[in-house]
Amino acid sequence: MSDRELSCTNTAGQFMDRGRMNQNGVVQPLLTDLYQITMAYAYWKSGKTDDHAVFDLFFRTNPFHGEFTIFAGLDECLKFLDSFHYSDSDIEYLKQTLPEGTENEFFDYLGNLTAKDVTLYAIDEGTVAFPRVPIIKVEGPLIIVQLLETTLLTLVNYASLMATNAARYRMVAGKHVNLLEFGLRRAQGPDGGLSASKYSYIGGFDGTSNVLAGKLFNIPVKGTHAHAYITSFSGIGELKTRLLKHKTTGVTGDLLELAVQYRQALSQLLDVSMEESSEGELAAMVSYAIAFPDGFMALVDTYDVKRSGLLNFSAVALALNDLGYRAVGVRIDSGDLAYLSCLARETFERVGENFKVPWFSKLTIVASNDINEDTILSLNEQGHKIDCFGIGTHLVTCQRQPALGCVYKLVEINGQPRIKLSQDVEKVTMPGHKNAFRLYSADGHALIDLLQKVTEPPPAVGQKVLCRHPFQESKRAYVIPSHVESLYKIYWQNGKIVQPLPRLEQVRERVQMSLKTLRNDHKRTLNPTPYKVAVSDNLYNFIHDLWLQNAPIGELS
Amino acid sequence: MSDRELSCTNTAGQFMDRGRMNQNGVVQPLLTDLYQITMAYAYWKSGKTDDHAVFDLFFRTNPFHGEFTIFAGLDECLKFLDSFHYSDSDIEYLKQTLPEGTENEFFDYLGNLTAKDVTLYAIDEGTVAFPRVPIIKVEGPLIIVQLLETTLLTLVNYASLMATNAARYRMVAGKHVNLLEFGLRRAQGPDGGLSASKYSYIGGFDGTSNVLAGKLFNIPVKGTHAHAYITSFSGIGELKTRLLKHKTTGVTGDLLELAVQYRQALSQLLDVSMEESSEGELAAMVSYAIAFPDGFMALVDTYDVKRSGLLNFSAVALALNDLGYRAVGVRIDSGDLAYLSCLARETFERVGENFKVPWFSKLTIVASNDINEDTILSLNEQGHKIDCFGIGTHLVTCQRQPALGCVYKLVEINGQPRIKLSQDVEKVTMPGHKNAFRLYSADGHALIDLLQKVTEPPPAVGQKVLCRHPFQESKRAYVIPSHVESLYKIYWQNGKIVQPLPRLEQVRERVQMSLKTLRNDHKRTLNPTPYKVAVSDNLYNFIHDLWLQNAPIGELS
Repeated sequence: MSDRELSCTNTAGQFMDRGRMNQNGVVQPLLTDLYQITMAYAYWKSGKTDDHAVFDLFFRTNPFHGEFTIFAGLDECLKFLDSFHYSDSDIEYLKQTLPEGTENEFFDYLGNLTAKDVTLYAIDEGTVAFPRVPIIKVEGPLIIVQLLETTLLTLVNYASLMATNAARYRMVAGKHVNLLEFGLRRAQGPDGGLSASKYSYIGGFDGTSNVLAGKLFNIPVKGTHAHAYITSFSGIGELKTRLLKHKTTGVTGDLLELAVQYRQALSQLLDVSMEESSEGELAAMVSYAIAFPDGFMALVDTYDVKRSGLLNFSAVALALNDLGYRAVGVRIDSGDLAYLSCLARETFERVGENFKVPWFSKLTIVASNDINEDTILSLNEQGHKIDCFGIGTHLVTCQRQPALGCVYKLVEINGQPRIKLSQDVEKVTMPGHKNAFRLYSADGHALIDLLQKVTEPPPAVGQKVLCRHPFQESKRAYVIPSHVESLYKIYWQNGKIVQPLPRLEQVRERVQMSLKTLRNDHKRTLNPTPYKVAVSDNLYNFIHDLWLQNAPIGELS
Repeated sequence: MSDRELSCTNTAGQFMDRGRMNQNGVVQPLLTDLYQITMAYAYWKSGKTDDHAVFDLFFRTNPFHGEFTIFAGLDECLKFLDSFHYSDSDIEYLKQTLPEGTENEFFDYLGNLTAKDVTLYAIDEGTVAFPRVPIIKVEGPLIIVQLLETTLLTLVNYASLMATNAARYRMVAGKHVNLLEFGLRRAQGPDGGLSASKYSYIGGFDGTSNVLAGKLFNIPVKGTHAHAYITSFSGIGELKTRLLKHKTTGVTGDLLELAVQYRQALSQLLDVSMEESSEGELAAMVSYAIAFPDGFMALVDTYDVKRSGLLNFSAVALALNDLGYRAVGVRIDSGDLAYLSCLARETFERVGENFKVPWFSKLTIVASNDINEDTILSLNEQGHKIDCFGIGTHLVTCQRQPALGCVYKLVEINGQPRIKLSQDVEKVTMPGHKNAFRLYSADGHALIDLLQKVTEPPPAVGQKVLCRHPFQESKRAYVIPSHVESLYKIYWQNGKIVQPLPRLEQVRERVQMSLKTLRNDHKRTLNPTPYKVAVSDNLYNFIHDLWLQNAPIGELS
């Protein structure tokens, strides 16, 4: 590419030591594509700065071969608007980056630009959303509304994808299984990991292993130990402490001695020879139990689940019991999870019965090896005894579809509708400023989403509403809604967030409530029924008239 | 899961307003899995805090069905070590998060912990690396070395995956094509996008659209405009400015008038009727050219590349030429890229010849629609005239394999080797503190990577070296190296970074240099030859003795 192209770098690297986010953890307006800035300059030069524009932010396809998407990321979008401001150093960098002739007054203009004249409408965060129904609408002066594009897409795309993925895992795992996000090390760097933790929690996970996410977002954090902890001990001779005070009496007991005794007895009960089991593992578990007597959860697959891990764990758990503490459970990180979880449950039941410790049978079994949606479905079929899944790589990378394709399209300027045509009908945009309604049946299920022109009266409860397929003329249906929900609220206006923002837990609850309004056939994993998105008759005609006006008449030759 | 498990959340959310990174953009030590902290406490309670440990950081499989990996992320790892310190608010959060009985002295200990006693060895950043050869080795007191695990993995995994992916795109695209990273909006949130920009540059891309990445990392940033810019104009009547001064004479010319005249002439030359082409597009291009007369690059597929975009672009570019400016080129963002790029090139050649503007034939053609490695291969086969690819989603999400599986394994403690056994031979770790050497042939190609015990003398140039497969007894080879490279350098020792750190451009150059040392058959896309990683005879015996000592003897029944 020619070196005359729009590009230039600062040579001194004088900006390298600045943080990536501002001090409140909100993204900076420079987190955008350069073409937003070059367009801004061209709009400014053309006198179009204050043209009144409306943009729709929407996706065209649901992810993961599914038929729904959870909308997330709104809170971060609003905080971004609230803090939108180019710092002096941003302006300095842009001066170095744009071509030499760029007028100085433009940079003065940028330096004073805020989002105060922008109005942002959105569906509530945590609500199910569908293709082509804008989840965010932004209106205001063309220049600022255009400048928001990339950052809004960045904040919505992964957040919604992750929340949707998490919600799907929750559905296949069922309500009573705990789900923990363990993906930090496999995410797209530091903030990829933080976003994954936050939005998997919103989507229905119960916690994360990511401590910083716990601190920043007030999410429950969970964790036990790694294989390295077990392998760092080679025998009981290494134990520097073996004593533990009884939980209620305070009398000091010898946890190691008790565990060794129980191990002997268990070795007979479970028909496992003590020589086969690892003494290093026993030592590691004793030491861990002394550190966390009320939270003893141990990894049992470092050597052999059956012949070492379960034996050692049970011995230490029974010893803890003698000192007034209840162990929590085990984690299995490899092997046949269905078989091993059943083996663990059986073992716990036998041990509980034999030693008269009835709660033993209810010990928690955590599984955490390369789990995805299909693994859980297969485990469900096989029958398993897992109480909790720790899910990493496939959750945070969204294995089945690693990106959501939200786009941000100009639909109206100075009151004039805009349509983007394409050979591909799916890519034709719906012009004009629109409203969206969700129509519900008498039993509370969502029936259809309906887009209308903003000038039309909303559909009324109990009245017949004509719903049309946006592009296929003959596909029409009458719907008589029992309840009509207007999907948009104004969230940002006159330079302020104008809705109370829910806490993370509230968004998380909304996800589950919103999913409940969807019929099961829309939510199932295999061949789900598409949820219908329609346009009013009025909007249908409006779109198609505009289409014909704008499409060139081809010539065959 | 039981509520007695290790977890607890702060209820006030008092930490939510703090930044995610410290003020220098370096990750915080709390960006880790909780189990690192619980293990730290258990180590501390067990008196194992200062046990001397060695951990290997390595991957088991190359990504993307390839046979090499580019190691990246080291610079960030070292800065992380340098700034490693739990803040008061971190300690406060951990006190709230760990179980009640956790001793206060532990938190005092954590509050004073730094990485000063750690030694970190690594392969140079930007070097090709192979499965099982540690890319980083960390030694020092068990507690701190363990605490580094998750963060180091987070910093290396995505960085290396991204750099490798970018290097693969570079290989298939060839040296003379420009590659731009356009993935911000599809990455894992804000920092996912920044990491993608940085490491795709290291891997061989020429620039990014991400302005903040440009500012922070001093990477060239590029960009033109979006379809919205074109659709925001509906006709030439909207143009508020049409005048542009001649580049050298300073005489004001009417760019619109010139463009309209050229458009008429071109319409005949190119056999396109003016009625079919969009006047709004012409207006948008004229206005953009007035803003960037020296950097005019235009999107030509908003309406129709052949019947509108190329006509309007050529008209404006010829008009610019009359005023002393050279246009840069066009971007095509949809359709058949092979066909359209050839059409564009032909058009430019015809126009250049007809209007006696020879440089016209060399205008830049950028393509940017959903491109991946396979698309480029297919375009190469079909023949195309593209000078530059803008690549987003598939680059940043690493479509073919969205995560690299680096692990961090304890291999030695207090001078005693540790081995992690597994049913799966691939998962057995190589015990002990090891050195790695790369042996080269006389023609400068890398032949094999050889792991040895640190106590062994390095292989010598011109001497026969016995190289053994780590697990298959019969697979052995003698290698006589013409050059031997010791792969590790100490990068961090006594609380300091002890190597000069290369600039990003230098790492970027090293990637290309390092790839040159690999034979082509290791690098090809289809069925590449595996590069061999071997162990010395000494290490082979050491591993297998230890394996037999540790593996239980099974019983068949």
